[in-house]
Amino acid sequence: LLSEAQRERFDVILVRPRNPLNIGAAARAMANFGFMQLNVVAPYEPSWREARSAVGAGKVLQNASVFSTLAEALGRGTLAVATSALTHRRAEQRVIRLPALAPYVNAEFECGGRPAIVFGSEKRGLTREDLSRCHLLVEIPTDSRQPSMNLGQAVAVCLYELVRPANNGPETEGPLTPTVQTPVDSGMLDRLEEVIDRTMTTTGYSQRITAAANRHNLHLLLRRLRFQAADARRALGFFRRILWQLEDRDR
Amino acid sequence: LLSEAQRERFDVILVRPRNPLNIGAAARAMANFGFMQLNVVAPYEPSWREARSAVGAGKVLQNASVFSTLAEALGRGTLAVATSALTHRRAEQRVIRLPALAPYVNAEFECGGRPAIVFGSEKRGLTREDLSRCHLLVEIPTDSRQPSMNLGQAVAVCLYELVRPANNGPETEGPLTPTVQTPVDSGMLDRLEEVIDRTMTTTGYSQRITAAANRHNLHLLLRRLRFQAADARRALGFFRRILWQLEDRDR
Repeated sequence: LLSEAQRERFDVILVRPRNPLNIGAAARAMANFGFMQLNVVAPYEPSWREARSAVGAGKVLQNASVFSTLAEALGRGTLAVATSALTHRRAEQRVIRLPALAPYVNAEFECGGRPAIVFGSEKRGLTREDLSRCHLLVEIPTDSRQPSMNLGQAVAVCLYELVRPANNGPETEGPLTPTVQTPVDSGMLDRLEEVIDRTMTTTGYSQRITAAANRHNLHLLLRRLRFQAADARRALGFFRRILWQLEDRDR
Repeated sequence: LLSEAQRERFDVILVRPRNPLNIGAAARAMANFGFMQLNVVAPYEPSWREARSAVGAGKVLQNASVFSTLAEALGRGTLAVATSALTHRRAEQRVIRLPALAPYVNAEFECGGRPAIVFGSEKRGLTREDLSRCHLLVEIPTDSRQPSMNLGQAVAVCLYELVRPANNGPETEGPLTPTVQTPVDSGMLDRLEEVIDRTMTTTGYSQRITAAANRHNLHLLLRRLRFQAADARRALGFFRRILWQLEDRDR
């Protein structure tokens, strides 16, 4: 999980992007995850103009830097991470999978470095020459039947991985229940149980031979469901109403 | 990390999408991460036609199902996960952050359930009514200055999180779940809801001004309580019996 200051010292580099919508999408993902520095290498000029002048282009695009080569764009960078979909090509540098990336980036910041992540063009990805300027090749774990990601989506997924809080402490939360409410106490459950049991009898849902089993199931169910106090109060009111109406009929 | 078979039993649901490029991008992200079942709710018709006929639209779009309501789209689903950017709105169900999602989905598969993830429209996200049909609300940890993600990118990030191999040795622990039982599907909950709602009206528990709020609370409650299929069947039988007796009285 990168700090805000770290995100500002992290370069996102797009090499030869062609599609203005993808450029815009990449910039938007950066803003979504708090990254500021976009470096664009040799963009297709009309696309770059269009992306930059788009409505809502935002600060990231306004402040982007354009370079003619990847070498220049990497300038101050100390760790260049290339991205790729799963590929059978023989990589010439260390390959890691995306979920393993964050520790490398953190370590780089810790020793005063400036990491960068590099995305290739939509059609061709990064060339061998581009890759040779990178320290690490990170693979996004895509399906082998459809490995190639859209550029904007690839940027979003990689940046998410870098800001994603680790989730490895044991979850302290229990099963699905909202956090702030008051659990129901046993006395309340007993009252609810009693009125439901009477309703089962009054309606004929419980017959003589099934009554005990139904009551037992009801016991178990009410405890398993983890009612909150407010739920139980409502349910109690509702069943009293039902019972009152049914008994009214019988009078 | 979901298996291939699990990904095929996982529904991705887009509610009222407007932009054909976003629909296409969502489908592409699904293919990238090995998900097959796209359910689309009330899409803007011309956009849907355009997305579906786009070059390279692919299998996911060809096999997508269209529904007119979220309730129908959730049909067989047992755990509906709503998505949202960081929001100040007061949520009415349990909120977790995206990195904590996988254990919930895994636990659901392990007890034989069918999870679904639900994305709202580009402009408005999910409505309160949509949200009330969901068990969990998952937040993507975006920057508060630019919280709102593009739809296709949000889908990519969420699905990546679900297939992302854990990178920290011991798998994270899942939430507590009941052991051997079958979770209830959304269609069954809808039927149960309907009969309880009718009972609330017939008994006069719901008056004209409280009916909508009561129905909304009932929605939330039934999803929060995590009924098992057998519980729901019993409850349905019981309420049908109540209703039959009450309506019998009125004849």
